[in-house]
Amino acid sequence: MAYQINASWKKKIATGKLYDTNTLIDGILQRNNTLLAQSITCIESKKEVDKKIANAILNACLPYSGNAKKIGITGAPGVGKSTFIETLGTMLIKSGYRIAVLAIDPSSQTSYGSILGDKTRMAQLSVHPNSFVRPSAAGDTLGGVARKTREAIVLCEAAGFDIIFVETVGVGQSEIAVHSMVDCFLLLLLPGAGDDLQGIKRGIVEMADFVCIHKADGERVASAKEAKQSYQNALHYFPPKSSGWQPKVTLCSSMQDDSIAAVWGTIENYFEFVTRNGFLVQNRQQQALYWLEQTIEQALKAKFFQHPAVIERWSNTKNAVMQGEISPFEAAAHLLELALPSSTD
Amino acid sequence: MAYQINASWKKKIATGKLYDTNTLIDGILQRNNTLLAQSITCIESKKEVDKKIANAILNACLPYSGNAKKIGITGAPGVGKSTFIETLGTMLIKSGYRIAVLAIDPSSQTSYGSILGDKTRMAQLSVHPNSFVRPSAAGDTLGGVARKTREAIVLCEAAGFDIIFVETVGVGQSEIAVHSMVDCFLLLLLPGAGDDLQGIKRGIVEMADFVCIHKADGERVASAKEAKQSYQNALHYFPPKSSGWQPKVTLCSSMQDDSIAAVWGTIENYFEFVTRNGFLVQNRQQQALYWLEQTIEQALKAKFFQHPAVIERWSNTKNAVMQGEISPFEAAAHLLELALPSSTD
Repeated sequence: MAYQINASWKKKIATGKLYDTNTLIDGILQRNNTLLAQSITCIESKKEVDKKIANAILNACLPYSGNAKKIGITGAPGVGKSTFIETLGTMLIKSGYRIAVLAIDPSSQTSYGSILGDKTRMAQLSVHPNSFVRPSAAGDTLGGVARKTREAIVLCEAAGFDIIFVETVGVGQSEIAVHSMVDCFLLLLLPGAGDDLQGIKRGIVEMADFVCIHKADGERVASAKEAKQSYQNALHYFPPKSSGWQPKVTLCSSMQDDSIAAVWGTIENYFEFVTRNGFLVQNRQQQALYWLEQTIEQALKAKFFQHPAVIERWSNTKNAVMQGEISPFEAAAHLLELALPSSTD
Repeated sequence: MAYQINASWKKKIATGKLYDTNTLIDGILQRNNTLLAQSITCIESKKEVDKKIANAILNACLPYSGNAKKIGITGAPGVGKSTFIETLGTMLIKSGYRIAVLAIDPSSQTSYGSILGDKTRMAQLSVHPNSFVRPSAAGDTLGGVARKTREAIVLCEAAGFDIIFVETVGVGQSEIAVHSMVDCFLLLLLPGAGDDLQGIKRGIVEMADFVCIHKADGERVASAKEAKQSYQNALHYFPPKSSGWQPKVTLCSSMQDDSIAAVWGTIENYFEFVTRNGFLVQNRQQQALYWLEQTIEQALKAKFFQHPAVIERWSNTKNAVMQGEISPFEAAAHLLELALPSSTD
């Protein structure tokens, strides 16, 4: 059901001046993609006035969140993440679902747009009224980018999206951040076993609930089957996940809808499994707690490292510690005494 | 060369009242195990007076540290860590090395003495003048225990120990802490492949530079060989380590000295490799930096969570966040405003 936008709103939207909190909240709850996008822009903004609006929007959306299935999708560049999401997303829309696609790309401030930068890579999803595609938030730190993405998820949930894909590049720390905001993780790999893993950082394979050997079509079928067997053997060596779920390895091709449907079937099995055993709820609670603690930690560190005395001495202290001239513990004590002299009270 | 202890010192040591800083420092540098042990007790103490002495000792020892090979040894309870260290250590002492054994056991405050609690488990090492065995430090937090162990390492290095083993239990976070204070990691496993990994936490196998299938003797030889092959295959799937070292899987039995000698040969190869490529020095510098940052982080958090307003609200805030009643970011902002009102200056 589309939200009716009146003429004056249309004008405000057209001029890009729409920052009225209630309008934005209404817009999200009425499932208006344009106002949802405007709200996410607010979340990403560094202006104080926008931050206040963003907080108000978040609080209004929070009661309507928590109903979407959140799926992290990772894989090295070139593995076909966008094609995979486009094919799977289009299929899910046909089944009546509403789909949102967000991205985390910590490198986006330098290699701008390495993922999702170009919406046209998901030609159908980016224009369909029942889907919403949002490129990666820019940001100074991965923590900042991740936080904005997590907040964008809340807004997408309030906007009634049933399934939210969070795409990430599979080569860095970003997976750990994404892992703390999604319900499960899908790793896309190319046929060729072993070698292609070289581009995937330690720990990523262990995080995956689903390993999909992508582009398993044409002459690649044989090597894809080999890769599947190898990964199945490798996964056997990882200890059980706290969800109790045994990761699944599947072959798929975005050129064959039935193989994508099979992947989705596995994902649905996962959600049934973790709903039944309580992990889904438990995990989401732990994730919320993680973000509470992370936010506090980041703020405390930011304040400390902004202290003039710390700024002045940090570089020298670091060098002295690395050269073994002072113990890291004593160096820390010195800096803490300068930044928080009251700590000795 | 033993340090000459005069009669009045002997008396002080006997009565356990020896907390004279210079005596302790001299004792360490003169390689006196009793005074080294007293100094480590100082490090572990919670009394303010002891902490000051501990800092003075650390500073005096720091210039003499950095020369030992530091090796983390992990494995599930029952895998035979103590026997392995006893056999290897005794062999190394015969070759002229001085050996220290420390332990990290985050569970030691509850299941007191689950590792190294009983020194008699290393009957020879615990009495030999060229070795020093110290059970796990007790502590409230893993961070605290780990920090004390890292400081104890500095003292052991200053006391002229050539090789320092840091033993840990292989089932928790402790390996990550140990990983940040040793040069390499040895994982002990029992024959039986796959299944026995169940007791080993995610990520531990990936951390290992050496995987030793222990107790590979008698009727276990066949299954040990099988396990070796399986682990070799599994390790193939892990991306290269930043050291550039390719982890080695070996069979060994503490009942066969030559198999233990072979393990040591592999460890020596590792040290040659990382010395040549510069990783050893680089890694130690990064570890020092890690401890500087960790110590600051811990202190900032400790101060925050000791704030009366935070103590009062923490439990309710946590629940509200877990139940989704308030966003973790907003909750964090509230608490930060209470604890650090000046942050809005």
